[in-house]
Amino acid sequence: MQKHVVNVSVNPRGSLETLSQREVHQLSEAGSGSTYSLFRQCALAILNTGAQIDNAKTILEAYEDFEVRIHQQDRGVRLELLNAPADAFVDGEMIASTREMLFSALRDIVYTESELGSPLIDLSSSPGITDYVFQLLRNARTLLPGVEPKMVVCWGGHSINSEEYKYSKKVGHELGLRSLDICTGCGPGVMKGPMKGATIAHAKQRIRGGRYLGLTEPGIIAAEAPNPIVNELVILPDIEKRLEAFVRVGHGIIIFPGGVGTAEEFLYLLGILLHPDNQGVPFPVILTGPKSAEAYLQQLHDFVGATLGADAQSRYQVIIDDPAQVAVQMAAGLRKVREFRRERNDAFHFNWLLKIEEGFQRPFDPTHENMASLQLTRAVPAHELAANLRRAFSGIVAGNVKDNGIRRIEEHGPYEIRGEAHIMQPLDELLQAFVAQHRMKLPGGSAYVPCYRVVS
Amino acid sequence: MQKHVVNVSVNPRGSLETLSQREVHQLSEAGSGSTYSLFRQCALAILNTGAQIDNAKTILEAYEDFEVRIHQQDRGVRLELLNAPADAFVDGEMIASTREMLFSALRDIVYTESELGSPLIDLSSSPGITDYVFQLLRNARTLLPGVEPKMVVCWGGHSINSEEYKYSKKVGHELGLRSLDICTGCGPGVMKGPMKGATIAHAKQRIRGGRYLGLTEPGIIAAEAPNPIVNELVILPDIEKRLEAFVRVGHGIIIFPGGVGTAEEFLYLLGILLHPDNQGVPFPVILTGPKSAEAYLQQLHDFVGATLGADAQSRYQVIIDDPAQVAVQMAAGLRKVREFRRERNDAFHFNWLLKIEEGFQRPFDPTHENMASLQLTRAVPAHELAANLRRAFSGIVAGNVKDNGIRRIEEHGPYEIRGEAHIMQPLDELLQAFVAQHRMKLPGGSAYVPCYRVVS
Amino acid sequence: MQKHVVNVSVNPRGSLETLSQREVHQLSEAGSGSTYSLFRQCALAILNTGAQIDNAKTILEAYEDFEVRIHQQDRGVRLELLNAPADAFVDGEMIASTREMLFSALRDIVYTESELGSPLIDLSSSPGITDYVFQLLRNARTLLPGVEPKMVVCWGGHSINSEEYKYSKKVGHELGLRSLDICTGCGPGVMKGPMKGATIAHAKQRIRGGRYLGLTEPGIIAAEAPNPIVNELVILPDIEKRLEAFVRVGHGIIIFPGGVGTAEEFLYLLGILLHPDNQGVPFPVILTGPKSAEAYLQQLHDFVGATLGADAQSRYQVIIDDPAQVAVQMAAGLRKVREFRRERNDAFHFNWLLKIEEGFQRPFDPTHENMASLQLTRAVPAHELAANLRRAFSGIVAGNVKDNGIRRIEEHGPYEIRGEAHIMQPLDELLQAFVAQHRMKLPGGSAYVPCYRVVS
Amino acid sequence: MQKHVVNVSVNPRGSLETLSQREVHQLSEAGSGSTYSLFRQCALAILNTGAQIDNAKTILEAYEDFEVRIHQQDRGVRLELLNAPADAFVDGEMIASTREMLFSALRDIVYTESELGSPLIDLSSSPGITDYVFQLLRNARTLLPGVEPKMVVCWGGHSINSEEYKYSKKVGHELGLRSLDICTGCGPGVMKGPMKGATIAHAKQRIRGGRYLGLTEPGIIAAEAPNPIVNELVILPDIEKRLEAFVRVGHGIIIFPGGVGTAEEFLYLLGILLHPDNQGVPFPVILTGPKSAEAYLQQLHDFVGATLGADAQSRYQVIIDDPAQVAVQMAAGLRKVREFRRERNDAFHFNWLLKIEEGFQRPFDPTHENMASLQLTRAVPAHELAANLRRAFSGIVAGNVKDNGIRRIEEHGPYEIRGEAHIMQPLDELLQAFVAQHRMKLPGGSAYVPCYRVVS
Repeated sequence: MQKHVVNVSVNPRGSLETLSQREVHQLSEAGSGSTYSLFRQCALAILNTGAQIDNAKTILEAYEDFEVRIHQQDRGVRLELLNAPADAFVDGEMIASTREMLFSALRDIVYTESELGSPLIDLSSSPGITDYVFQLLRNARTLLPGVEPKMVVCWGGHSINSEEYKYSKKVGHELGLRSLDICTGCGPGVMKGPMKGATIAHAKQRIRGGRYLGLTEPGIIAAEAPNPIVNELVILPDIEKRLEAFVRVGHGIIIFPGGVGTAEEFLYLLGILLHPDNQGVPFPVILTGPKSAEAYLQQLHDFVGATLGADAQSRYQVIIDDPAQVAVQMAAGLRKVREFRRERNDAFHFNWLLKIEEGFQRPFDPTHENMASLQLTRAVPAHELAANLRRAFSGIVAGNVKDNGIRRIEEHGPYEIRGEAHIMQPLDELLQAFVAQHRMKLPGGSAYVPCYRVVS
Repeated sequence: MQKHVVNVSVNPRGSLETLSQREVHQLSEAGSGSTYSLFRQCALAILNTGAQIDNAKTILEAYEDFEVRIHQQDRGVRLELLNAPADAFVDGEMIASTREMLFSALRDIVYTESELGSPLIDLSSSPGITDYVFQLLRNARTLLPGVEPKMVVCWGGHSINSEEYKYSKKVGHELGLRSLDICTGCGPGVMKGPMKGATIAHAKQRIRGGRYLGLTEPGIIAAEAPNPIVNELVILPDIEKRLEAFVRVGHGIIIFPGGVGTAEEFLYLLGILLHPDNQGVPFPVILTGPKSAEAYLQQLHDFVGATLGADAQSRYQVIIDDPAQVAVQMAAGLRKVREFRRERNDAFHFNWLLKIEEGFQRPFDPTHENMASLQLTRAVPAHELAANLRRAFSGIVAGNVKDNGIRRIEEHGPYEIRGEAHIMQPLDELLQAFVAQHRMKLPGGSAYVPCYRVVS
Repeated sequence: MQKHVVNVSVNPRGSLETLSQREVHQLSEAGSGSTYSLFRQCALAILNTGAQIDNAKTILEAYEDFEVRIHQQDRGVRLELLNAPADAFVDGEMIASTREMLFSALRDIVYTESELGSPLIDLSSSPGITDYVFQLLRNARTLLPGVEPKMVVCWGGHSINSEEYKYSKKVGHELGLRSLDICTGCGPGVMKGPMKGATIAHAKQRIRGGRYLGLTEPGIIAAEAPNPIVNELVILPDIEKRLEAFVRVGHGIIIFPGGVGTAEEFLYLLGILLHPDNQGVPFPVILTGPKSAEAYLQQLHDFVGATLGADAQSRYQVIIDDPAQVAVQMAAGLRKVREFRRERNDAFHFNWLLKIEEGFQRPFDPTHENMASLQLTRAVPAHELAANLRRAFSGIVAGNVKDNGIRRIEEHGPYEIRGEAHIMQPLDELLQAFVAQHRMKLPGGSAYVPCYRVVS
Repeated sequence: MQKHVVNVSVNPRGSLETLSQREVHQLSEAGSGSTYSLFRQCALAILNTGAQIDNAKTILEAYEDFEVRIHQQDRGVRLELLNAPADAFVDGEMIASTREMLFSALRDIVYTESELGSPLIDLSSSPGITDYVFQLLRNARTLLPGVEPKMVVCWGGHSINSEEYKYSKKVGHELGLRSLDICTGCGPGVMKGPMKGATIAHAKQRIRGGRYLGLTEPGIIAAEAPNPIVNELVILPDIEKRLEAFVRVGHGIIIFPGGVGTAEEFLYLLGILLHPDNQGVPFPVILTGPKSAEAYLQQLHDFVGATLGADAQSRYQVIIDDPAQVAVQMAAGLRKVREFRRERNDAFHFNWLLKIEEGFQRPFDPTHENMASLQLTRAVPAHELAANLRRAFSGIVAGNVKDNGIRRIEEHGPYEIRGEAHIMQPLDELLQAFVAQHRMKLPGGSAYVPCYRVVS
């Protein structure tokens, strides 16, 4: 792979412009200390924004001599980039959006590092974690007071087919025509399509200040580099905080076709919405895709019905091949959100009223023990079942495709899961369908063999 | 053709918001008098913005029951639309850009009508025509004082192939990355590609207020409906005034592959730039296209060399398949324009210093007599030869493809042209190449037969 | 009188930035032709803005070598000032507001001159005159569409005592606290006080874009130079058009103590409001002053009652020594104006619905013949009587204090007026009071002798 | 004293709009806990903005039933005011600037309280204190990056005579005409005059966004309530941090006539500027006043010469009765500040390079012991002598006029000061002059008796 590189020096914009001497000193340590490789990796991903390669490894290897140095100067901070990908520059000058994202990454990484010791941060309790997510988003200037609810989160695959991509663009266009903003995981595929569609629609509606919010985390930013339309980038410290950010900042969610990750996110969302405390909280959710994805969506919908029941199905709508209708329904849902928050005097910019149990805020480690103790039975409340299903799903996927999951299976044999048959069977079928539709890639193209067995 | 229609009522924005009672009265007459069909036709084209059909006839026929009524009310003016294409509306509300363009059309048509009687308008002299073009553009708020030269005119075909379209988008992207604005004829093809590319680039560079200026005229707006990216629309009264607007408002021109119309525009431009008075006036011109268009561009370039000479060739650059280089060269050219105007204290927003002879400001009617009296010889000055070539070119095209041209040839036989062989031969070859490359469509797919003969 | 002068060159801002070559040429003629002395006089007044001298003659004499030259340059127009008052400059640079006003004057004078020949201007009819006033105000960018009614006209004396001045400032402060804008005749005294008070109040209310509109005319600008708070200046061509501008652009009027000019304006206003066509048109009018002015205001009020009747008195409120109450009542009146115009779909920026008879749009020349034919009897409708009273008043003042009036009386003896005694007597008393209160200065401090006699 | 009071409820603006649930909870505690009386006192001072009484005690007593309650609501915070001074309201609505200042006070008080426990705040070291001042100012959004140096601090008395007040207004007008901003202690007198003058000048120069920054502290806000022109208010926690804020945020300082407080501030400033580390740091200082204050200024100047020497005198200019010259010199000084910071890459918004010794950052308690150990001799370096003089000055003033100082003298007899005679004598003379000029008021109008004796 041939590559052009450049060496440049850039000054910050935004909240990094007014730093105290102490903060600048702390920042410059980020250029050498433990956070260095983290920042370097994010920086490289951002500098590759818009490039066609979306394989993290390839990028990292292609630019292994890339370096970023943070210089302290009385007036503030300056970044020096060595051997940086030339595509991020025009006539030697860094593209404005790239520069913005670069300093967004620095801002968030430094914030994450520096605040951890603060007595104001309490990661040991559920409200403390929520507070931390709030602080981080506010520090990133993502929380705009007084703006009416119009942030639509779009979830779905990052490597979908062309038809599904075009469909996501059309939905984004219809959302944009109705003045709605877009929030995604900020990579390609469904994370880009709706933003692109909305950009054109906002231009048509003469809307300045349309928001294209990308929420990512260090573990995936390299694989899913921010697309160039993102105009607000926030790097959350881990998957769980990123998920919480989505549901607290978004006013509604659209789920497009995707892989196992999308299905997990869907279960995460249902687990929260089914919590009794959230029963009266309006939160529009739409499952949608083009005609060609109808079977897939139907199966997902049936799976929810079979496992979590009709009540769970009633928390979302399924709309096939009708972008305008998706936007019309979403807009209607957002009006209810607005009224609800107004009545309760709740903020528009952060969904404080949504109850998220601590279990959703902590990572799940799929050991054999953890998998064996999951309660997959309709005897537990639906929101707990949803949470457990998400964990089982996550574990099974790991057992099939992830390095440490596969190793565990090789060592200890298949997971033993204490699940009801009419829960485990639809789950099994769903996974098989994912494989058949190439939405889950097995290592070496091997046949799908369940890595678990049901113990009754 | 199935169609959805709606009936709505809209209020104006911009300069039509403060009208005197007399002006409102005059406007409402436009809803019934001689200007009505003109305005109705423009309105219909604008309401079809973004639709895929770009056949004027089809649109007009599809919506033959479309009506637009202008209502007088004390506070101003209101448009009532009956049986309007539903695509221009979202949930019953007109898309903002469509509404803007609709009132731009009304503004320009009324201005054209109302000012004609004014003693301040003198269409009988060359400076008077220039003054009129200026007034019209100023009335449309197109002339922004103090803005540095950065308006790049893009000329080229409206029905080019996909590769050429993508190339024009890439060039627009590179122009936009360098903060340049785009001006085109405002339809599809090359009129849209550069604007689309620039939109994305402006977003990346966080440039608000990027300009996408479309200059059109009533005769072609239906066939080349404004693309939805256009955010400033001006309707000039005829072809010649539209051409003058291009060269006075644009600071540089890029010529992409196109049909005979594009070639005519190129000759028009060369005719002006070769005028002795314009010798020192900087005006960057670039002829460019993708690799696949190299032969075509080379032939055009050779034709200029063979007929107008090396001096004419020196007034533009040819750049093949290199969008970034096109933008770099254009930006360099614009810096010279800026310095030149600054030294001369000339306006940035209107190229007063460019000499345009009256011949270029008047239409050419290709009668046999007019064709016979064209002087196509290197004995006349190059700028006159360019002007005559443009006329000859225009006449021959009419003789081959336009209704009244074909009829004239049928009646009176081929045009007799008093041209030098080494001018007429390259011209003939160029036209044949256009046919071969499907850039000029002959009626009924007939073979190309020259509709002229050279008399020496 | 010692004076500092400077020579400088300034470029325009605003609508004079985009001129055609023809217009620049026309402008530069204003530097030498018949309009030169007009413009020079206005320019000198503006350059003396804020200076303490408010005697036109003194200024003109002090700077008799002041010259202003208008230079044509391709890019536009440039003013060269020779021997200009140094107070208008800071470190050699002209104060921004002075520069703005200078070009406002040029704009209006040139507009007045250049439009006179246009077929769009018809000064022979009443609607034509109104249309002309509208055009001129629009050209000055005074008419802002969509802004709610909040322009309060303040009329009153320009050489009032300190207590009355402070009172006008307090009223302006209260108006400003309620987000209202101020329009005056733009000189000192009552023309400045309310603007000053409103400026501080707008700052307190964090209102940016507060408007301080000054309407003047060439005949008085030298004597009543624009105060430096004025941020929009319009020079109407004569007294009658200026008066019409006040009542069409203002949404309400406050009348403070003043001299005979103020009384004339009050009669002008009553004459219009009493017209039967204007019966239903809401137009808040308040007569107000400090405690010390109570007797004066009471007399004016009684005079209206005695001559025009209770109906005339009901068209305004009298409020003594209560600035907050004045503002509260005015704000309430403006809400009615807003509702009325909304219902009628009338513009907020120009009071089209107000009927102004042609008699009010034409100057009155107080010859003996004209004075003798005035009908000063309650037999005529009140609005006609008001108009005639205004004329009588104007004539008597001229006969007492103005050069050509005094000469006429010397030549032909006192005016013979065919008025009812119970109209003429209160008028006579009112004039005597004006003299007693030093609101009308007689030549050489002579005793007040009526210059008319009533013929029955 | 008659008073009107109102009960209202207001919502915040600015940084208090996006609070976390934890922060809102903390805030609402400020409504009951130890910070309550502090906030109540500031709130009352702010609600009296613009009132004529400037006696803290009077205000506090007049509104002793005033209460402010802080309510928590999901969406944020709300203030309920009971028995609040009616002057702060217009038709029942709080004046925008008052509301802004009210929430500024809340913001700063809560910040001060909440940050004290943070490990990021270190008040035990000199850099730590500077960092804290920076944090507080940044939290108040006072530090605007990228703005050129133009913040002029004006120091001087708050109860000066009318001539001195008018002079300060004229100086502010000249500063404003040159686009400079004003920072003062935010009360009446010299703290108001320059702001008022600059407001009018900024309006004349069409400058929007002129800054009128008031820095105060809880101990004096009641006595020196923010004048209504202040558009940025910051409440620093104590005198020393307020002084540091002045010299770090201001780019130049003008010293007007004032009382002993002003003289102390002047010595504080000289003490800093004379520090060897600050030798090359440009910092324009001007001592100025009207003709009538010439003797006073001369004496102050002579005192500096006699005690600190000619070098100290060279750090400032004395300009008598020439407002324009003051502004011209200040503007020239600011250009040097700009160049200096640009060369050093230092921030424009905070003077990091200025060395402030810890002694200046800590309060001085004038016990007999502390007074006795002051080294008032030219044997110590000038900057230390300046610091000690400031302390001696402060102690002597306390011994003469402040409650606890007088008590100390009554108990232990006069301070024994180990000072050189040619330092102590001018100091003594200066103090006597202050008394003679009524710039220092002795208790009960008693005669000035030195409360110290020099021990050699």
